[in-house]
Amino acid sequence: MAQGVIRLLAKLCAAASAVGKKEAEGPLGSCFDLHDDSDKFKQKTWEAAESEMQRQVLGLAIKRARLAPQDVDMLFAGDLLNQCVASAYGLLEYHIPYCGIYGACSTVGEGILLASVAVTGGSAKWASVVTSSHYCAAERQYRTPLEYGAQRSPTAQWTVTGAGAFLVGAVSNKGVNVTRGIFGIPRDSGVRDTANMGAAMAGAAADTLMRFFRETGESPNAYDRIVTGDLGYEGGSLLCDLMRAEGIDIMERYADCGQMIYDRVRQDVHSGGSGCGCSAVTLAGYFLPRLREGSEKRILFMPTGALMSPDSIKQGRTIPAVAHLVELEA
Amino acid sequence: MAQGVIRLLAKLCAAASAVGKKEAEGPLGSCFDLHDDSDKFKQKTWEAAESEMQRQVLGLAIKRARLAPQDVDMLFAGDLLNQCVASAYGLLEYHIPYCGIYGACSTVGEGILLASVAVTGGSAKWASVVTSSHYCAAERQYRTPLEYGAQRSPTAQWTVTGAGAFLVGAVSNKGVNVTRGIFGIPRDSGVRDTANMGAAMAGAAADTLMRFFRETGESPNAYDRIVTGDLGYEGGSLLCDLMRAEGIDIMERYADCGQMIYDRVRQDVHSGGSGCGCSAVTLAGYFLPRLREGSEKRILFMPTGALMSPDSIKQGRTIPAVAHLVELEA
Repeated sequence: MAQGVIRLLAKLCAAASAVGKKEAEGPLGSCFDLHDDSDKFKQKTWEAAESEMQRQVLGLAIKRARLAPQDVDMLFAGDLLNQCVASAYGLLEYHIPYCGIYGACSTVGEGILLASVAVTGGSAKWASVVTSSHYCAAERQYRTPLEYGAQRSPTAQWTVTGAGAFLVGAVSNKGVNVTRGIFGIPRDSGVRDTANMGAAMAGAAADTLMRFFRETGESPNAYDRIVTGDLGYEGGSLLCDLMRAEGIDIMERYADCGQMIYDRVRQDVHSGGSGCGCSAVTLAGYFLPRLREGSEKRILFMPTGALMSPDSIKQGRTIPAVAHLVELEA
Repeated sequence: MAQGVIRLLAKLCAAASAVGKKEAEGPLGSCFDLHDDSDKFKQKTWEAAESEMQRQVLGLAIKRARLAPQDVDMLFAGDLLNQCVASAYGLLEYHIPYCGIYGACSTVGEGILLASVAVTGGSAKWASVVTSSHYCAAERQYRTPLEYGAQRSPTAQWTVTGAGAFLVGAVSNKGVNVTRGIFGIPRDSGVRDTANMGAAMAGAAADTLMRFFRETGESPNAYDRIVTGDLGYEGGSLLCDLMRAEGIDIMERYADCGQMIYDRVRQDVHSGGSGCGCSAVTLAGYFLPRLREGSEKRILFMPTGALMSPDSIKQGRTIPAVAHLVELEA
């Protein structure tokens, strides 16, 4: 079937995560491998700190897979910075064939799907995926420099300082199975408010999930969790509503990385976390270990991304969004 | 062999190109499908014009492949604008599963390789690739608004206003064979001068070409043309020198899209053309027709990209670069 669900034969064999202070202090703090309380990772700029997180997590993930960098055939990497420079600079030292990808906060989903497509088809034996975001770098690029002290809207999300890395290999290896996936079709819900990304992305998430359920005949009960990337509280609630309107209740199984990563009351993050790093570190640090140890058997992982730029918004455009879905099995 | 040449079973079955005034007046002007002398394509902003070029070329390429948009399984698209918005907005109406990619001026190479990997492995029956750049949008984002009238350095390249689209399908279709490819490893040659991208990219191009020749045992004589994306006059000459230093003379077979697209004397473009659109429209408008009609039998197509951002340069970083290589056969 054209544009349909893709059958995949690949495994997520190793992962690693690095986060900043706020994430380390959040409810998932103990799940992450590395953190730096200064958010600087010994670098001079926030952008270089983001690159350094990418460098460290890829190194750790490669080590955990008992590989050397030269064993890795392809690297899919992306971030939120203009021209994706966190990835371009951060991963230079590994000398791995490089595919830059961009899907805003959905990037890790796009990367895991593309890596799995390459491994399934035999074009790569090992493919890696790295994505990141940094609160301080994102604020000054997308909104205002931190020093300005801008007030945040209740629907705004907090960009996660974090990077996640993944090694995707053949099914003969140990790891978590990547069994099926579906690439998202961008949808424009007409939302113009960049302080309400959840609303902009919920429609794309519902679209991808409905396409998957319709074609496969699966229902939410077949999964321990249905996890979105970072719709946050606003978008997450909209997604559940949109799905209910289609006759499918996901509420009981639903989780959102943006809702999970911070304590809503204690950490003052308004509508939750976001950023290319958010779903990457939550998958690497929380969900993959649970799938490996068997406390969850089967999940749908669906990061969502808002595809606008600050300039496109200034030019009066709406916010298109996309959501890529991956089925993971213990 | 890890990180090696990838065998591909795919065909470039259709393509289309759109350009601006300067490109239409250049030596390849008659090769392109669409052009608009205002460079605006009836849009209000340069950015929207770039999106509109993408929209028009994808529509034309799909039509030429005798397909409907819903037959196309995947879309790989990218451009130079922050957050790749030319692609995000331009291709919305087609409702095709979307993978945003970023490789600066190498993006079309990355896209054709990824589309061919997906088709070869059976994850897609039809995959499309669209990339673009726009001189006016790029100038104000990367350098200065046109109104400023900044003087250009002799080694500077001129961003091509143009978009190219490609349909990649199974080998059972008519078209040009994509037989092998190799993803580039990013290289940092220590260059900091953004007005000399050719110098920054030549090392990455030499690296990819050497990796390909070493593993396959092929020599330049096996190809009618060895085509780089847009090293321009400066970078092209450096690449030939670097290859000669490795004992391989490519000079006789060498062509560069950035050198070909403008008339150096008549059009005052200094070191040649550049941008995600440059190699895309040259492949779509010039090389693919020549391969189809048999006046060339076998070429290496290797777009090159410089992976910095204006911010990374202001922060004192050097310019990493990457070059992806595709082998095309009539």
